[in-house]
Amino acid sequence: MELLKERIRKDGKIRGTDVLKVDRFLNHQMDVRLFAEMGKEFKRRFEGCEINKILTIEASGIGIACVVAQEFDCPVIFAKKNQTKNIAGDVYTSKVESFTHGRVYDIIVSREFLGPEDKVLIIDDFLANGAALIGLIALVKDAGAEVVGAGIAIEKAFQPGGDMLRAQGVRIESLARVKSMSEEHGVEFVD
Amino acid sequence: MELLKERIRKDGKIRGTDVLKVDRFLNHQMDVRLFAEMGKEFKRRFEGCEINKILTIEASGIGIACVVAQEFDCPVIFAKKNQTKNIAGDVYTSKVESFTHGRVYDIIVSREFLGPEDKVLIIDDFLANGAALIGLIALVKDAGAEVVGAGIAIEKAFQPGGDMLRAQGVRIESLARVKSMSEEHGVEFVD
Repeated sequence: MELLKERIRKDGKIRGTDVLKVDRFLNHQMDVRLFAEMGKEFKRRFEGCEINKILTIEASGIGIACVVAQEFDCPVIFAKKNQTKNIAGDVYTSKVESFTHGRVYDIIVSREFLGPEDKVLIIDDFLANGAALIGLIALVKDAGAEVVGAGIAIEKAFQPGGDMLRAQGVRIESLARVKSMSEEHGVEFVD
Repeated sequence: MELLKERIRKDGKIRGTDVLKVDRFLNHQMDVRLFAEMGKEFKRRFEGCEINKILTIEASGIGIACVVAQEFDCPVIFAKKNQTKNIAGDVYTSKVESFTHGRVYDIIVSREFLGPEDKVLIIDDFLANGAALIGLIALVKDAGAEVVGAGIAIEKAFQPGGDMLRAQGVRIESLARVKSMSEEHGVEFVD
């Protein structure tokens, strides 16, 4: 998606060869007009898939997912990272290893909101090692629901998550696939 | 806002006299069609206020804020609850006491995204003791920006946050103000 690539070139900040900061428009300050365009693009790519639920993970996936969901006219569920007092025990749960935070955490979704009748589109801001996506797919499968695919804003295609999950048959649509990056030469995208 | 009150009556779950679970439509599963109607109502109430930024706090405020922001055609910033590797040191910070989780945590916003030129609408799902709102207002004031007001989905009007902040001159618009609730008699709203 050219609009997103342009924005990454303009406002993304590269640290070393693997950290891409996009907090000007994607995951701290959020450009909802850009998110709406991303929603149209996901809708085009998943046209006819009868998606009835969007699943994401707190926190930075939520904003994108909610704006994208308006295109699909369906509810969003966000997986929570820790069990709080306000969630009953009746949940699906899986584990995610966060490379950003250097720890493993549980993610949960209430059983009330996912079941065998659901066709689920997973939305997230980044795909790198695939840890979050693997955890989310496990939740959907636990529920007996169908993973239609994953809609990702930015895929770090030089990291293994995307290729590994595609090899397992997961449909992944990434709007910007980063081939390589460096502070010196900027971001290069997969064609 | 009658639509939201009806939804709370229909899908809200009351525990004791002070816990109102709205995870069917507001803060776990999210009804983005309802959020769009809430956006129109906030736009009506804050008409002419020249709001150019919406501020919220992770995680459950983000979805509402992003859909509401489409009405105001402005970006959203979400305050983060913990400093991660991906945020530089140049941040505004304040403290919030969470009654739900029983702890005090830091919230942060990058200095890059708030400044004296900003007119800020704060959006959140709940207002009870006012802890999150006090923390968010402190961040905006630290930045030299203007707090235009706060748009809240559900105010527990029987708890002190709303009245205390209104007494300090903060404009608070709550779409549903709960006067009292009980498992036996359900939810009663302030007129």
